[in-house]
Amino acid sequence: MKVLVAIDSFKGSARSVELNRAVAKKLNQLDFVESTAEIAIADGGEGTLTSVQNSLNGTVLEIPTIDLMGNPINAKVLSFRADGKRQALIESADTMGLDLIKPNAETVRTASSKGLGLLIKEIERRGFEKVIITLGGSGVTDGGLGLLKEYGAAFVDAQQNNLEEGNLLLDAREIELSTIKFPEIPIVVANDVTNPYFGEHGAFQVFSQQKGATVEQIQQLDANAKNLSQVIFKELKIDLATTEGAGAAGGLGGALAILGAKMEPGFKLITELINFEERLKTVDVVVTGEGSIDQQSLFGKVPFAIAELAARYQKPVIAICGKKSITNHESSPFSGIFSIQTRPISLTDAMEKETTLTNAAELVSSIFITAFQLSKNGGIEHGSK
Amino acid sequence: MKVLVAIDSFKGSARSVELNRAVAKKLNQLDFVESTAEIAIADGGEGTLTSVQNSLNGTVLEIPTIDLMGNPINAKVLSFRADGKRQALIESADTMGLDLIKPNAETVRTASSKGLGLLIKEIERRGFEKVIITLGGSGVTDGGLGLLKEYGAAFVDAQQNNLEEGNLLLDAREIELSTIKFPEIPIVVANDVTNPYFGEHGAFQVFSQQKGATVEQIQQLDANAKNLSQVIFKELKIDLATTEGAGAAGGLGGALAILGAKMEPGFKLITELINFEERLKTVDVVVTGEGSIDQQSLFGKVPFAIAELAARYQKPVIAICGKKSITNHESSPFSGIFSIQTRPISLTDAMEKETTLTNAAELVSSIFITAFQLSKNGGIEHGSK
Repeated sequence: MKVLVAIDSFKGSARSVELNRAVAKKLNQLDFVESTAEIAIADGGEGTLTSVQNSLNGTVLEIPTIDLMGNPINAKVLSFRADGKRQALIESADTMGLDLIKPNAETVRTASSKGLGLLIKEIERRGFEKVIITLGGSGVTDGGLGLLKEYGAAFVDAQQNNLEEGNLLLDAREIELSTIKFPEIPIVVANDVTNPYFGEHGAFQVFSQQKGATVEQIQQLDANAKNLSQVIFKELKIDLATTEGAGAAGGLGGALAILGAKMEPGFKLITELINFEERLKTVDVVVTGEGSIDQQSLFGKVPFAIAELAARYQKPVIAICGKKSITNHESSPFSGIFSIQTRPISLTDAMEKETTLTNAAELVSSIFITAFQLSKNGGIEHGSK
Repeated sequence: MKVLVAIDSFKGSARSVELNRAVAKKLNQLDFVESTAEIAIADGGEGTLTSVQNSLNGTVLEIPTIDLMGNPINAKVLSFRADGKRQALIESADTMGLDLIKPNAETVRTASSKGLGLLIKEIERRGFEKVIITLGGSGVTDGGLGLLKEYGAAFVDAQQNNLEEGNLLLDAREIELSTIKFPEIPIVVANDVTNPYFGEHGAFQVFSQQKGATVEQIQQLDANAKNLSQVIFKELKIDLATTEGAGAAGGLGGALAILGAKMEPGFKLITELINFEERLKTVDVVVTGEGSIDQQSLFGKVPFAIAELAARYQKPVIAICGKKSITNHESSPFSGIFSIQTRPISLTDAMEKETTLTNAAELVSSIFITAFQLSKNGGIEHGSK
């Protein structure tokens, strides 16, 4: 029996690689388990680069650029070959991560996406044939204007002064698009956010407060983004008011869309990249899971996507979780969804990492042992009624 | 696949029959489940009579006696034939249950085991050849003196007045044993309590407070029990200070021991009675469980006893519980022990009956479906490493 272990992180408790390791280690102790394979789950969020590297054996390059505050930094770039192309994978959070700053009104004024522009240009210069960018976890709120400026766009404020540094969107009243020199390298964005560029569900009203923006800054950013979008629509026929994902990473999604980037759901992109489907074919059973499995999981979250892929090859899929809010039903692609909780317990205690890892390993092992014993002695072979 | 469902009560949440029903109903919806059998678990506690009747098809007679307060009552007596003998099973709680009174100092003074004496005598008079008595849940604290008096023992107080009614032990200074007319019917007591008659771990210091006794009453009862025990030891060579289970049911265990009753662990007695072992042989898998499965369960509680029996016939056993405090290990007779909890949850919410029944049914069903799918497609047949 060959088992593929691909459990998503239990957010706030244990990471994907930790869960996979704990479960696989326990399963390897079982006589009837021939082998286990672990696939760290990445959906375009943080940790994607490591996960993809684990699966693809690429090389991590360090390429100099600047971080969101303008300080020199070496960005991690995964260099790998796939589909006959030399490709690069970068996490925008690596250079522009919210975790690099103490967010406040001042960092909102300073933080810029310029470094990402420099980085993509350098990747292009080095002859890569495709670049994949993940957008999760960013600390910028500049609508991607820093990036656009690197590609030739220009911005002026109310006094017609050229804007050069920091969060250009705070003061930008006009945008010059005709000077843009579009990148030649195909850009693919792993993006699971569907928010538009501006407005009630846009980048600024929804995400900027957690990045330190004041109410006044939020209003300014949103109003300016709306203004610029009218020009962008007029000149490029790109409607950032309705472009899904344009509001990701402080509007960086919109800026990349302007540069011709293709947006893809993170999990789909990454699973294709790591040949998940091919590896799935070589195993007998899949163990997946995530912190909370609920109705939402049935529509596109990682364990469900894995289970749907597995179902195509009649591979049983066991899902584990901390919190299970749905019952099994016939149309579910899971053999079973099991909670790792072993008793009435508070959320805080349940989130303790060691508890999560121990319970997860113990649960999956128990399910396998039970299945094995039922299979050998349990009359399953006597079949249906 | 034939499944035997024999889950003990989740105390305070759901009864054995309810859990069995919920789980069996769900299992019967599975195509590969040929049949389910349900065995209500009884260990000599409350509900034993119903459980045994469910399994043995005996007849429930109503035999007039008095309850612990002296009021007329019809006691339920299960009449059945086993081992070629006409046997009677009674629950002492049926006539002397704590749930029949509002326990306070006054009920401690009044409550008597006399009614049980009347009942056993009537059972004997009706020609039964054996009587089985369960001792759980009683509201008496009279040391079984009411029962003993029915069989001819006599008691006097400090003023040498004969004691006639109520809790004789509160005032008894002397006991007359020579007048006892011992019952001819064999009495077997289902008793899982190991407390002695008196002393620190005895009936009064341990159990009487919850039956309404004041500190003074507890002291009186314990001191008198100790006094009388010296006479009993001297005249009958029965040492109630060391007789395990003599402290059950307010000392009724001791009184029954004096009358020659044989004490047996409840579960052993009941499983033998209902031919549990024979029925086990006819199924493929067993589902058992109880509210809490911990280290203590490994030594003699119901699910463990069931699992040990099942192991003799290589039948896989799945245990479910509300709280799991042990991990699986090689020497465990369980295929797996699974908690029904589906999320971090408070004890109060976890105890809600419908939650328990739903979760239990859903969990067991998921385990079976998973086992079935792993068995069919999961490469289990490809065996060991």
